[in-house]
Amino acid sequence: MIGSSAGAPERALRLAYEVGLELGRRGAVLVCGGRGGVMEAAAKGAKEAGALTVGVLPGLSRAEANPYVDVAIPTGMGHARNAINVLAGDAVIVIHGGPGTLSEAGLALAYGRPVVALRGSGGVADLLAGRTIGGRRVHSADSPAEAVELALRLAGGHT
Amino acid sequence: MIGSSAGAPERALRLAYEVGLELGRRGAVLVCGGRGGVMEAAAKGAKEAGALTVGVLPGLSRAEANPYVDVAIPTGMGHARNAINVLAGDAVIVIHGGPGTLSEAGLALAYGRPVVALRGSGGVADLLAGRTIGGRRVHSADSPAEAVELALRLAGGHT
Amino acid sequence: MIGSSAGAPERALRLAYEVGLELGRRGAVLVCGGRGGVMEAAAKGAKEAGALTVGVLPGLSRAEANPYVDVAIPTGMGHARNAINVLAGDAVIVIHGGPGTLSEAGLALAYGRPVVALRGSGGVADLLAGRTIGGRRVHSADSPAEAVELALRLAGGHT
Amino acid sequence: MIGSSAGAPERALRLAYEVGLELGRRGAVLVCGGRGGVMEAAAKGAKEAGALTVGVLPGLSRAEANPYVDVAIPTGMGHARNAINVLAGDAVIVIHGGPGTLSEAGLALAYGRPVVALRGSGGVADLLAGRTIGGRRVHSADSPAEAVELALRLAGGHT
Repeated sequence: MIGSSAGAPERALRLAYEVGLELGRRGAVLVCGGRGGVMEAAAKGAKEAGALTVGVLPGLSRAEANPYVDVAIPTGMGHARNAINVLAGDAVIVIHGGPGTLSEAGLALAYGRPVVALRGSGGVADLLAGRTIGGRRVHSADSPAEAVELALRLAGGHT
Repeated sequence: MIGSSAGAPERALRLAYEVGLELGRRGAVLVCGGRGGVMEAAAKGAKEAGALTVGVLPGLSRAEANPYVDVAIPTGMGHARNAINVLAGDAVIVIHGGPGTLSEAGLALAYGRPVVALRGSGGVADLLAGRTIGGRRVHSADSPAEAVELALRLAGGHT
Repeated sequence: MIGSSAGAPERALRLAYEVGLELGRRGAVLVCGGRGGVMEAAAKGAKEAGALTVGVLPGLSRAEANPYVDVAIPTGMGHARNAINVLAGDAVIVIHGGPGTLSEAGLALAYGRPVVALRGSGGVADLLAGRTIGGRRVHSADSPAEAVELALRLAGGHT
Repeated sequence: MIGSSAGAPERALRLAYEVGLELGRRGAVLVCGGRGGVMEAAAKGAKEAGALTVGVLPGLSRAEANPYVDVAIPTGMGHARNAINVLAGDAVIVIHGGPGTLSEAGLALAYGRPVVALRGSGGVADLLAGRTIGGRRVHSADSPAEAVELALRLAGGHT
C-alpha cells in the first residue's frame, strides 16, 4: 500500500483504513512506508483485522515507524527506499498520494508489479487511475473492497 | 535529464538531442541514467557542444553506458538508482518517458529538485507538465531552449 | 545475524543454528540476509524456537528467500542491501563469514550498531573478534548463548 | 580510493596525497567518497596532477564534497552509497580507514573488484593487507607508486 505520510484529507485516511481492514480479513500481509498519514491509517486497519504489518522506513531508526507496524525496517536511504517498498509487495494499492507516492507508482510499474489506484481518494491515485504508462497499465478500483480484490487477484500472477 | 531508455518516438529523440546541445552551449554538466534512447540522444547533443556527461547506471558495469557518457557510475541498485539520478542534478528536465521516468519525476519533487517537463515530447512529460503534486509544481516548457533556460534559472535557487 | 550464504563449514552452520534457537527462546526477532548457508541455519533455529524471521534479500523476488524466512523483503539492490540488513537489527552477531559479512560488520560499526563476533566460527568473525576499528569495538563471544546474551544486552542501549 | 573521512594520522594523509598524484600522472580517474581526510588528500593530489575526480556522497547535497572533487554525486543513501563507491572504480586502493572503509573493502571483494591495501598506512589497510577473505585476496603494496601500479594492472583484467 502506498500513499502520503502527510496532507491527506480525512476521506483518504478513511479509505486507507478500510483497505487495511480488508487486507487483514483476506489474510494478506500489509507492506507500507511505515510512517504517518495514509500509511498509518492502513496499518491500523490491517492490525485490527489481525494482519502482520511491515514498514520500510526512510531513516535510521525503528522509532520512526507508526504504532501499528509490527516489523519496522530502517534503511537509511531516504526516498531510495521507495523501490524496496514496492518490491516487497506482490501488488501495490495507491491511495491519494503526493511526490513520494508518484515515485512508488513509477517504480512498481518499472519493476512489473501490478498497480491498482483507488479512484476517488484524490492526489496521485486519481491522476494515474486507468492510465497506461510506457505500455504498463495502472488498474482502477472504485472502493476499498474492489481495490483489495483486484490487487490480490493480480498478485496471483506474480511471485 | 530524465527520459525513456527505449520506446521513445523519433520526435522525442530529436528534442532530447537539442536539450543536450543547449545544455552544452550553456556550460552545464549533463547527468542522466546513462543508457539508450532519450538519454543517449541528450548525451550525444551535450557531448557535441563540449559538455561533460555523467551517467548513473542501474547495473554493475560501466559497459552499460552509452558511448557519449564521460563518467559512468555503476550502482548495482536497479531502479533505486533513480533517486541518485535526480539528486545529482541541480534541476531535472523531463522528456517523453515511461515508468522509470515517472518515478524519477516523483523522486525529484520529493527531494525538492526543480522539475521542468518538455511539453509536446509525449509520455510522462506531457502527463505531468504544469501539474501540482502534493503542493510541488512541475514546470512546463514548450521548446528545448525554453526548458534549458528555465531549468538553469530554477537551479540557481538550489545547491 | 550476519554470515556467509555459501562455503561455511559444518561447525559454523551448527553454531548459527544454535544462535537462532537461543534468539528464539529469548523472544527476539531474527533479521538476516535471507539466503542459504549460515543465514538459513540461523533462521531454521529461530523458527523452531518460535521466533519471527525476517530476510532482507539482494534480488527482486521473494522466491530467493530460504524456507525459514517469514517476512522476505526483496530490495533489488545487490550488496547495497547489506546496509539495511544491519540497520534492521538492534545488534549484530557475526558467524563465520566472507566478503559480504565483512562489509556488513563495517556498516554496522559505521552506523553505531553493536557488533558481537562469535569466536571460533572462523572467517570474518575470527578476524574481527575483539578488535577496535576506528574507535569502535567488535565484541567477542565464545559460545552461541554468550553471543546472544551479549547482543541482547548491548541492544538495550540502542533504539 | 577508499579511506577515512576523519581521524587519519598525518602519515596516512601524505600517502593518500601521493596515491592521488600518481593516479593523476597515469591518466586515471579518481573515484572516492568525496569528503574530508584521506579522501580529500587523495583528491588534492589527483587534481594537482590533472586527473578528473569523482566523489560519491552519502548526503543530499553537492556542498558536502571537498574542494578537489570535480563531479559530485549526492546519493542520499548514507553508508549504502559505499557499494557505489567501489563499483564506480576499476580497482580499489585502501589507505588507513575505519568502519566505512572496512565495509567498502568487503563490498569491493563481494563485487569482485580488485583490492590493493597500502601497507603501513594503518587502520583497515594494515588489517587486511595480504589476507584472503572467503577465497578473495586483498593485495598488498608498500608504497603509493606500487599501489597505483598494481591497481592499474589488476584493473586491466576488469571491465
